[in-house]
Amino acid sequence: MNAEAAASQTPSLGQAIVDRINELGAISETPEHLARIFLTPEHRMAADLILGWMRAAGMRAHIDAIGNVCGRYEGQQSGMPCLMLGSHYDTVRDAGKWDGPLGILTAISCVAELSRRGRRLPFAIEIVGFADEEGVRFASTLLGSRAVAGTFDESVLGKADRAGVTMREALVSFGLDPDTVGRAARTRGELYAYVELHIEQGPVLEGLNLPVGVVTAISGATRLAARLTGMAGHAGTVPMQQRKDALAGAAECIVMIEEFCRTDDGGLVGTVGYIHATPGATNVIPGQVSFTIDIRAPGDAHRRRAVTDMVRQIETIARRRGLELQLDVTHENRSIPCAGWLKGQIADAITAEGYAVVELPSGAGHDGMAMIDIADVGMIFVRCRGGVSHHPDEHVETADVDAGARALLRMIENFRPRDSA
Amino acid sequence: MNAEAAASQTPSLGQAIVDRINELGAISETPEHLARIFLTPEHRMAADLILGWMRAAGMRAHIDAIGNVCGRYEGQQSGMPCLMLGSHYDTVRDAGKWDGPLGILTAISCVAELSRRGRRLPFAIEIVGFADEEGVRFASTLLGSRAVAGTFDESVLGKADRAGVTMREALVSFGLDPDTVGRAARTRGELYAYVELHIEQGPVLEGLNLPVGVVTAISGATRLAARLTGMAGHAGTVPMQQRKDALAGAAECIVMIEEFCRTDDGGLVGTVGYIHATPGATNVIPGQVSFTIDIRAPGDAHRRRAVTDMVRQIETIARRRGLELQLDVTHENRSIPCAGWLKGQIADAITAEGYAVVELPSGAGHDGMAMIDIADVGMIFVRCRGGVSHHPDEHVETADVDAGARALLRMIENFRPRDSA
Repeated sequence: MNAEAAASQTPSLGQAIVDRINELGAISETPEHLARIFLTPEHRMAADLILGWMRAAGMRAHIDAIGNVCGRYEGQQSGMPCLMLGSHYDTVRDAGKWDGPLGILTAISCVAELSRRGRRLPFAIEIVGFADEEGVRFASTLLGSRAVAGTFDESVLGKADRAGVTMREALVSFGLDPDTVGRAARTRGELYAYVELHIEQGPVLEGLNLPVGVVTAISGATRLAARLTGMAGHAGTVPMQQRKDALAGAAECIVMIEEFCRTDDGGLVGTVGYIHATPGATNVIPGQVSFTIDIRAPGDAHRRRAVTDMVRQIETIARRRGLELQLDVTHENRSIPCAGWLKGQIADAITAEGYAVVELPSGAGHDGMAMIDIADVGMIFVRCRGGVSHHPDEHVETADVDAGARALLRMIENFRPRDSA
Repeated sequence: MNAEAAASQTPSLGQAIVDRINELGAISETPEHLARIFLTPEHRMAADLILGWMRAAGMRAHIDAIGNVCGRYEGQQSGMPCLMLGSHYDTVRDAGKWDGPLGILTAISCVAELSRRGRRLPFAIEIVGFADEEGVRFASTLLGSRAVAGTFDESVLGKADRAGVTMREALVSFGLDPDTVGRAARTRGELYAYVELHIEQGPVLEGLNLPVGVVTAISGATRLAARLTGMAGHAGTVPMQQRKDALAGAAECIVMIEEFCRTDDGGLVGTVGYIHATPGATNVIPGQVSFTIDIRAPGDAHRRRAVTDMVRQIETIARRRGLELQLDVTHENRSIPCAGWLKGQIADAITAEGYAVVELPSGAGHDGMAMIDIADVGMIFVRCRGGVSHHPDEHVETADVDAGARALLRMIENFRPRDSA
């Protein structure tokens, strides 16, 4: 069936979702810069709005113990295991409107359409609007999905935000009981799968001129902090042969990292995003340079090998230049593979909607990283303009929202649990 | 004559000079960090101390209209043209004790030795302790020597320091009349030459195991401000092939600049001392990077050609990477060659003291850059430990101070004006 034929059967969902994206996007700490931070009054307003939309879609809905908005649409019998859909409704600061909400609102629209048709499936559908994925307030990400997955670390309840308010206090202000967070946890037997629709946050789909794509994995990441120490000196008086220029050494490392990743064929990306040279004066040779390295790949073994190789090259560069090297891994997370059977069902839905199927990794983190502990994970990416995200310019065309919604709806309607697949 | 024989004729001057270096070095804005800034009370105290030492050496001495301490030791007849010696007595902040004062105090010791012997030469000797060379207070360098050279720009009198005090007001506080600065000016006919002894501020003499060296030229310099603009993006979601990473581009430029200067055989040095990447987050591809470039060489034509070549390469790098380039020259000064006849007489003195003669450029600026307008310039460098300068660790061994003093004294005693040379 081609795209036109599919569209003729299902009313366009795109515009209604975009309207809600705009309504939700107006709920912000300040009107100029979208910021909807975990457990703030704006966050509560957004939760209530989503709660209302879930109920209007024919779902039972409540706010769970960590602030997630949870809705359930029963299957052909009450109490069946569910296909869980979701994404997050918190934002970064100066955010776009789409990162997170698109997945929640699209899922609600799909259920509303099923409800409108009076259609019940041989499984329940649950939607979770996760309360915290970005981790802006307490410098700890995936709080909402970790609570659902039963892996919430209760010690973070004592963490304070910049204003000195602890998460425990913030939960109480939000109307929740911090001692009951554990009740948000779900178990593997309750879920057939977790499927999330999200904007790509990258330029791959745009480059391929496709509105949607199938995610293969959420890439694992290694972050390192590097510090090279040489010798500061007068920019005019130290001959080139006698220098220990820490910035020239760092520059050689940056060029090497880029070249290493550029020539890799395993989806590796490497970024030096932060650099600081000391003393940082025009006429002084930098004596010390700090920089960060962010390495990601869909495959963990591939990433680890690559990190080992690059570290060895950095050590060689430092040794050859007589620079002292301090290199520490500051963060590491494994790759989260999307389940093959879910990729297959998502691909089938995309094909049925008349689009070519492209598989791509997610370089950004998502709630699936926590949900993998209790369910197989699948993800659908929707094209966003210029690949821009975490920025007010973040944008998705209404036609692409619609394409994403149709693909998700079709995937839901044709969903077969793994055992039966 | 070897070094031992020379030392037997002249009492060691080194220790007395070092004692005065320490006495002068104790006069500072704060006791912990040496800072003796133009026209401050400490500056005045230092001027008075130097004035006393000049008089004790048998010189007539006064403080001129810009705050320079000026001493004169008459020749065989009164009113003869002079060999002018000098350096500066202001400092940078958190300075070393040697940069500047060593040249003044060594010159005073040489005159004191001539005076002790009752020796008059067929020319006068003048010593100037220049009031401002570093330019810390009013962001304008060489104020003392420019006043003597008659090239003082009167418009800077209106410039204010960070506290809002103008140079005009500061001169009055110091006890001077800002309307008479012009009277500090000297004319070409009054000087046979200007000769300065200064610490090297670099590691060349130390590397050659020599206490003193002959300066060939004060290198010319070009400073540029570069800005590369690419596209910021998520460190995980933008494939390497679709990036416009401004920092990777800057790194390639830095490596190129270092390589270009390292393989040059004309004394070129190139430094990127400052770099700033925006937005500067671990997980964001830098969209914009600013950095400075400082290029110096003893030869102006050589430097200009090198700058042109490097700018062309930076343009190529930017174009190939799809980065927008903004590149501006922020500062340029020509090379100041030391006069051949003075280099010869300095070299003869060094040889007579038993040391091998090495010629080296000065990458740092000195008062000779202003004095060149009214006199031929010569410079003697004295080895400093590790090439360190503009830092509390700045250090000169007493034996090297003595070697510098003996070489300067011998040069003075054997000095022949250019016409007679």
